[in-house]
Amino acid sequence: MKNIHRDNVTAVVQHSFAGIGDERTRHLLEQLVGHLHAFALQTQLTHDEWRAGLGFLHEAAHITTDSRSEFSLMSDVFGLSSLVDLISSRPGTTPGSVLGPFHARGSPWMTTPVNLLAGNPGEVVLLHGTVKDEAGQPIANATIDFWQNADNGLYWQQDPEQSQDNLRCQFKVDAAGSFELLTIRPKPYSIPTDGPIGKLFRASGRSQWRPAHFHIIVEAAGYQTLVTELFDPEDPYLDSDAVFGVRQALVTAYLPQNDAADMARLGLSQPYLSAQFNVVLPSARA
Amino acid sequence: MKNIHRDNVTAVVQHSFAGIGDERTRHLLEQLVGHLHAFALQTQLTHDEWRAGLGFLHEAAHITTDSRSEFSLMSDVFGLSSLVDLISSRPGTTPGSVLGPFHARGSPWMTTPVNLLAGNPGEVVLLHGTVKDEAGQPIANATIDFWQNADNGLYWQQDPEQSQDNLRCQFKVDAAGSFELLTIRPKPYSIPTDGPIGKLFRASGRSQWRPAHFHIIVEAAGYQTLVTELFDPEDPYLDSDAVFGVRQALVTAYLPQNDAADMARLGLSQPYLSAQFNVVLPSARA
Repeated sequence: MKNIHRDNVTAVVQHSFAGIGDERTRHLLEQLVGHLHAFALQTQLTHDEWRAGLGFLHEAAHITTDSRSEFSLMSDVFGLSSLVDLISSRPGTTPGSVLGPFHARGSPWMTTPVNLLAGNPGEVVLLHGTVKDEAGQPIANATIDFWQNADNGLYWQQDPEQSQDNLRCQFKVDAAGSFELLTIRPKPYSIPTDGPIGKLFRASGRSQWRPAHFHIIVEAAGYQTLVTELFDPEDPYLDSDAVFGVRQALVTAYLPQNDAADMARLGLSQPYLSAQFNVVLPSARA
Repeated sequence: MKNIHRDNVTAVVQHSFAGIGDERTRHLLEQLVGHLHAFALQTQLTHDEWRAGLGFLHEAAHITTDSRSEFSLMSDVFGLSSLVDLISSRPGTTPGSVLGPFHARGSPWMTTPVNLLAGNPGEVVLLHGTVKDEAGQPIANATIDFWQNADNGLYWQQDPEQSQDNLRCQFKVDAAGSFELLTIRPKPYSIPTDGPIGKLFRASGRSQWRPAHFHIIVEAAGYQTLVTELFDPEDPYLDSDAVFGVRQALVTAYLPQNDAADMARLGLSQPYLSAQFNVVLPSARA
């Protein structure tokens, strides 16, 4: 420590966390320091570049509020959020996808069949499906937390014209693990571009758009929580999602339906689209 | 992009920056993404750990102001600032060390021999030395930006009892590249521990102290700017600097002086300490 030089600094910093009692936390910090230093050494990072990086973080801090995190966005657009989802996804179960910035706890509780239409303009969609375990058995106690944007591309928190809690809800699946939810077709939307991430996107010519999607969190006692999204296969931005959330298993067809009995049962006076999403939830094994 | 999985996500994210015109910026972003993803993959980072990391950044953002950056501090205590200094230090020249959070442009201009005593309590120190090039020739146009803390361990910005600009100045070396500066012996001080970094230090039992030091920036046209520190060899925290700034070449002896003529010339009525710092400034070659 009396003579720090470039060949010992990484080990010395890693050793400074030796006193952390939790082994996993210590390991994470050692690895974080190792990768951070390897980045600086491999790129021979200059003072000007280091200052630019700090300036980026300061701009991010400046624009971040309780309801708008440029740091979450940074994780999203650098693919870290998506990678963490992919790391936690077990083969044979429904893959996770990014949580995004518009989730908040406390959605209104509803009952399947759920109806979120409430006068919202847009194409009517019946989202239906099941929640099952890896053995194909229904998970009757599963809850679904659902949110999406309106026909103008905005979530209710962004749009004073929408009523509170518009197009979001929580509900339990039925005894057979099934659910039905009447809603509207979601719309693509732009990530916020008024912060440093927006500057980076303009400099790189990256698409700022997210393809249209439903947000879904599935929870059940004894199972891992699934945070995921369901994508519209006809969306023009499916191949350029700004946050890398699209997986093949999360793209589902929107099928036109015009059966009069179904329409009557759903209280609809016009044809609609149906989209199926069958979730396989991984058990919470150690 | 339609089917992101853990084996393609890093390359896809790196490719998303392909449109950046500046080759160096593109390279830095690709490397940053590569190391960030390698960290997550090697540690099999979980959602809870990712959320904890984001929470750390949000706490850092919350406590950061224009005059107090938890992000600079994070760079310091993770050894990144020190590593960038070491990367830029050329063998045979004076090593750089961390800038720290208390530098601000616009120090009062003074003339060598500088006198910063101004009634400050503390042991009187004459810091003296030269600024030369790699061939040993004096750099007569060099300027020095100097700042340090007071005898109570605080910088003037932290302490309403101190006058504005206390113990900081800028000055030009003389035609022989020499300078003299009368000041007080600096004191060790704690890094700020009221933010998330403080929590991390308490969890790891790391020392929050920085050994006493002078801050010095040396600039001259045609040369690289040197940001460095000069350490007190008798400091108890020399071997546990919270920000990894100590290098052997930056530790200088404090030698007792009692020559009456020197004391008279310096306007001192008591013995003092002298500390020598001879800077070798690297030329600004491409």
